Amino acid sequence: MDFVGSHILSIDQFDRSDIEKIFAVADRMEPYALRRKKTRVLEGAILGNMFFEPSTRTRLSFGAAFNLLGGQVRETTGFASSALVKGESLFDTARVISGYSDIICMRHPESGSVAEFSQASRVPVINGGDGSNEHPTQALLDLYTIKRELVDRGAGIDGLKIAMIGDLKYGRTVHSLSQLLGLYKDVEIYLVSPKELRMPDYIEERLRKAGHRLVVTESLEEGINNAQIVYSTRIQEERFKSTEEADLYRGRFRINQAIYTANCQPNTVIMHPLPRDSRAEANELDGDLDANPNLAIFRQADNGVLVRMALFALILKVDHLLEKYEREVSWFTRK
Amino acid sequence: MDFVGSHILSIDQFDRSDIEKIFAVADRMEPYALRRKKTRVLEGAILGNMFFEPSTRTRLSFGAAFNLLGGQVRETTGFASSALVKGESLFDTARVISGYSDIICMRHPESGSVAEFSQASRVPVINGGDGSNEHPTQALLDLYTIKRELVDRGAGIDGLKIAMIGDLKYGRTVHSLSQLLGLYKDVEIYLVSPKELRMPDYIEERLRKAGHRLVVTESLEEGINNAQIVYSTRIQEERFKSTEEADLYRGRFRINQAIYTANCQPNTVIMHPLPRDSRAEANELDGDLDANPNLAIFRQADNGVLVRMALFALILKVDHLLEKYEREVSWFTRK
Amino acid sequence: MDFVGSHILSIDQFDRSDIEKIFAVADRMEPYALRRKKTRVLEGAILGNMFFEPSTRTRLSFGAAFNLLGGQVRETTGFASSALVKGESLFDTARVISGYSDIICMRHPESGSVAEFSQASRVPVINGGDGSNEHPTQALLDLYTIKRELVDRGAGIDGLKIAMIGDLKYGRTVHSLSQLLGLYKDVEIYLVSPKELRMPDYIEERLRKAGHRLVVTESLEEGINNAQIVYSTRIQEERFKSTEEADLYRGRFRINQAIYTANCQPNTVIMHPLPRDSRAEANELDGDLDANPNLAIFRQADNGVLVRMALFALILKVDHLLEKYEREVSWFTRK
Repeated sequence: MDFVGSHILSIDQFDRSDIEKIFAVADRMEPYALRRKKTRVLEGAILGNMFFEPSTRTRLSFGAAFNLLGGQVRETTGFASSALVKGESLFDTARVISGYSDIICMRHPESGSVAEFSQASRVPVINGGDGSNEHPTQALLDLYTIKRELVDRGAGIDGLKIAMIGDLKYGRTVHSLSQLLGLYKDVEIYLVSPKELRMPDYIEERLRKAGHRLVVTESLEEGINNAQIVYSTRIQEERFKSTEEADLYRGRFRINQAIYTANCQPNTVIMHPLPRDSRAEANELDGDLDANPNLAIFRQADNGVLVRMALFALILKVDHLLEKYEREVSWFTRK
Repeated sequence: MDFVGSHILSIDQFDRSDIEKIFAVADRMEPYALRRKKTRVLEGAILGNMFFEPSTRTRLSFGAAFNLLGGQVRETTGFASSALVKGESLFDTARVISGYSDIICMRHPESGSVAEFSQASRVPVINGGDGSNEHPTQALLDLYTIKRELVDRGAGIDGLKIAMIGDLKYGRTVHSLSQLLGLYKDVEIYLVSPKELRMPDYIEERLRKAGHRLVVTESLEEGINNAQIVYSTRIQEERFKSTEEADLYRGRFRINQAIYTANCQPNTVIMHPLPRDSRAEANELDGDLDANPNLAIFRQADNGVLVRMALFALILKVDHLLEKYEREVSWFTRK
Repeated sequence: MDFVGSHILSIDQFDRSDIEKIFAVADRMEPYALRRKKTRVLEGAILGNMFFEPSTRTRLSFGAAFNLLGGQVRETTGFASSALVKGESLFDTARVISGYSDIICMRHPESGSVAEFSQASRVPVINGGDGSNEHPTQALLDLYTIKRELVDRGAGIDGLKIAMIGDLKYGRTVHSLSQLLGLYKDVEIYLVSPKELRMPDYIEERLRKAGHRLVVTESLEEGINNAQIVYSTRIQEERFKSTEEADLYRGRFRINQAIYTANCQPNTVIMHPLPRDSRAEANELDGDLDANPNLAIFRQADNGVLVRMALFALILKVDHLLEKYEREVSWFTRK
């Protein structure tokens, strides 16, 4: 695809070479994010960071990414303060708001709303999550994290062995990640979930068509003992008939250091879309994993900034100018 | 008036030459807003964008205008988070907050609050709307839009024929616009409203004193068939005894493409203060007008940014320095 | 202490030389805050202004201070929009959010939360208030104001005579200020409060150990007639058994111009942590004091910006570079 001036609405837009292009630019963003130097390439540009649904970390990540390229951020958070409640159409909102910025990131609780908005927008729009539908930068940062973690371990995405654990039926992140994996070769995917929360058929089929090998199981141990990447997601109580049933599954899919040591290959990478629920009853990823260098969940969050910087640079066509606008960092940094 | 260091509280402050000065500077802002180039003239300056009442589009418009001149924006939205609820006086709030910025834009639900605030402020204050009282930048952007649309059609504000439609009794925007029109010559004004929502006497009188010709009517067709500008506003249900009565009027004042074609002169300009209610029952401006190039409602919103940039530049006395701080735009733009 | 890269969590961290270092840098910030010139030393740096509890003025003050040094601000306000409500630990929040900025200011309703957060943060954290526990920059700006006001009057903090009035039991500001005064010599402190709201024993002891002279009294007149600084704080109704009792004390501790003239030495300085409750029943500092040049409450707020700029500069190690990145101010200013 041609990124320049484009909307980013769905991961369906990308083929493998697009993904690789984004990742190559993201790699070049790391020195700026780590503050080894800074770039002023978007000085004077304005991001409209339109969060019609709260999501602090995603909002901050997009905003910081734009600031790191030298740009300014105008924001809105929440629905109440919006003209949308007075009966304004997304068309009108888009026509007006796109006059206030050079590029827009938009999050909205309704599926399809961002695509509808983008049709009327006069500037490029990035989907920051539209309900249960799409959150393309999350999928990109997940895959980018897999790539980086594997490269550090001498491997690549082709030939990947990954376990996805938890709520595979409603989990938007595992759906999107699966779809992106369809662009790669020879992937082995362990789908670990309660029967009620099994991965939807259409996604399983797509993965099989791509030539990937699927193992569907309710056993955590079977899922993780052969994987290079363990992608854990949350199981929510409201998906079950009873609290007891939910607790049963959550207890079985919990990962802590002892379970990791007993079942995983050395250097198995642990991922999670965050936020992680750290309350005792959550039974997701225990705190004793924090000392494990293979816990990649915070590197995931950091990678989100790099991927978003890359998209901004590609859409606004400044990826070739990063170095031209480079400056020394004058302040203390330990990053 | 001398703009430098002044508060902008009311359109009463302006005479015709002031208006023309603002519009001349606004014209010079267009290349920056369209991103043909950028200016860094306010780099390091801080706008205190104090919205004690939510108004997303006005807040974003002021903020974007300041960013386009190179400045920074600090913001607050809403009342709950403010010390005002703990019994702090507007005097104290103003003394404190004016220490945090170079200029303030303030919106507040109470009439007169911004004027009171400005008396204690140590920096210039622009009224961003104080309840039902004043919203001077809205009036300026409306008149600026009329001027620009007419100039494109070879005409000017002197000699203008305009129809104002809808709730003329409570509509703050039509009151303010009428007042500004009092500064011009030979205007013909068609006041189209239900009897209950007729323009207040004092405004009609003022317009007559200015030598303007008024036509007061309940007939949409009579109002629009001779106008160069049709300014439509919303009729709110709560102004009537019954829903049925409100619906009756709304139905009669609705404009769509068929009504436009049947009644308007070619190239008649359609304006609206926005947000437009696009729900079926609203009966304001139909969506089929969106394809009509004479629908100026989104150009109005764009013009708001230009007018606000002009006020910032005049008050902070940088209008003569715009070009000196000009730079190339390094990123893609299709505006 | 070594400021570079450090967290600022508590005034316990400071010895007298640290305080003096902060104040010396704060003095150098005044020309930038007064807009005689500007500095771009933190251009490109990002402050994460994390307000998990609303506090408009503190949030604006930190943000403006960072902008005045040339940096960008990313913000969050309030709790609802935060992942903390979904069971995320402060550890996780800190690991993630510290990836979005170069330095963080954090306010949070729970005591100890900011310290816990700072342990997981990868960038320096400044405590912007953690419940009833600490608000170190408020204590610093109070002491800095005392120093500046006294210097103008030819005196210093050693040998200071100060009256603290109101709720000395629960008032966080007077506790912190007392603690800082423990670093100085020969201070005379008049503690004026209802018996029920007397200064806690451990603070009185600490002040006595530092060799200071304490006068504990319920008489406003006795407290203020000999003081150079009168530090007034609010008495809250909920601390008493009945409204009548609260009203009684509030009435007795009220200060207005007549009381000032009758009881205070000439040039006695009046301070207050703000916001001041200006409602009639509040009986704190009357509005007729606003014309008194010794009312320092708004200079306190201004000094807060200088102190916060100083901390940013010291922590990020740019205090020696302020002048190098200095530029002319191009816009009108009357400050």
